Amino acid sequence: MSDPDLILYTDSSPNGFKITIALEEMGLPYSLRHVRIDEGEHQRPEFLALNPHGRIPVLIDRATGITLFESAAILLYLADKSGQLLGHDAPERWACITWLMFHSASMGPLLGQRVHFECFDTVPNPAAIQRYRTLTEATFVTLDQHLANQPWLGGATYSIADIATFAWLHIAQLVGFDFSQQPWLSQWYAQVEQRPAVQRGIRLPAPATGP
Amino acid sequence: MSDPDLILYTDSSPNGFKITIALEEMGLPYSLRHVRIDEGEHQRPEFLALNPHGRIPVLIDRATGITLFESAAILLYLADKSGQLLGHDAPERWACITWLMFHSASMGPLLGQRVHFECFDTVPNPAAIQRYRTLTEATFVTLDQHLANQPWLGGATYSIADIATFAWLHIAQLVGFDFSQQPWLSQWYAQVEQRPAVQRGIRLPAPATGP
Repeated sequence: MSDPDLILYTDSSPNGFKITIALEEMGLPYSLRHVRIDEGEHQRPEFLALNPHGRIPVLIDRATGITLFESAAILLYLADKSGQLLGHDAPERWACITWLMFHSASMGPLLGQRVHFECFDTVPNPAAIQRYRTLTEATFVTLDQHLANQPWLGGATYSIADIATFAWLHIAQLVGFDFSQQPWLSQWYAQVEQRPAVQRGIRLPAPATGP
Repeated sequence: MSDPDLILYTDSSPNGFKITIALEEMGLPYSLRHVRIDEGEHQRPEFLALNPHGRIPVLIDRATGITLFESAAILLYLADKSGQLLGHDAPERWACITWLMFHSASMGPLLGQRVHFECFDTVPNPAAIQRYRTLTEATFVTLDQHLANQPWLGGATYSIADIATFAWLHIAQLVGFDFSQQPWLSQWYAQVEQRPAVQRGIRLPAPATGP
């Protein structure tokens, strides 16, 4: 059997899980290359040749010769390639893209700042902690109100917008960012979490250490 | 003459300029609705019905009944609708999308944090100022290296990736974020800046006060 055309460079991280979940959901064959960020592999020349900004995930499609980085770009590519998970008609397709962009530009980056100041900063910075707590909790409220009216972020069907949002919230929940006061968001989260492909995706690549 | 199908809700801001520039470049007829953020119009119920997160820009297309928010989603929609500014073949198309996402997720949000801490924060926060200066300058270096090898972010042709990146850098430059040490980025910036549609776009909507 020949090697799969798709090669995913990733680590166990919020943006990485978006792509492992999507590939598992779509049933596309792929090879996984574990880029160990804690060993600095994302800064090595061979990785910077793929993404000059030194971030995972990166996807290579040997069938088309295309290399992509940025998780949202990769999700759009995989939806286009597979014809899956991007809505059933034009209005739903553009709703999926709108909420994917909401996650990618207005939610994920702020969650990243909150993780930095709450979990990794060496000197406590109460003003910054409060800023990103407030801003990220506002995104939880927006998502909650949106999900009060429809089952999935793009409308009637599960999509890459749900995958992207779930992947980051999975880590947010693990580090204690609380959205339990948002009932619709919590219910949606539980629905996504129980999908077998999601359970497979959040375990890839296997953490480098520990059980 | 009938009203245009496209209605853009925006204010004079980095994310707003992305769409006014794109519409001017594409030559699509549109109506402009000025949402005065300094008067709180983005928090009024009629605007929150369009974008529940209360951010400009918002685009309505009456021809399709589709309403979009998030500037990157709107740019992708307009490129799709017009058949313009998203590369000439599949590899260039996906390069445009990759660099549009790089701007939207990895650059714009960090520039926004830098503007907050350097320009608007009431209590100086040196650690946060340094963090966002370092992170945004790293994006300038990445863009500079990329533009050393090709004229536009997506490759051989100007695209919505260039528009998005320029729109934010235009404000960054106005507030004194320096990228003059990046020669390729500076040359690219000057090329984009001199385009007539860009000059029109960055003046829309007219600032509420002053010349």
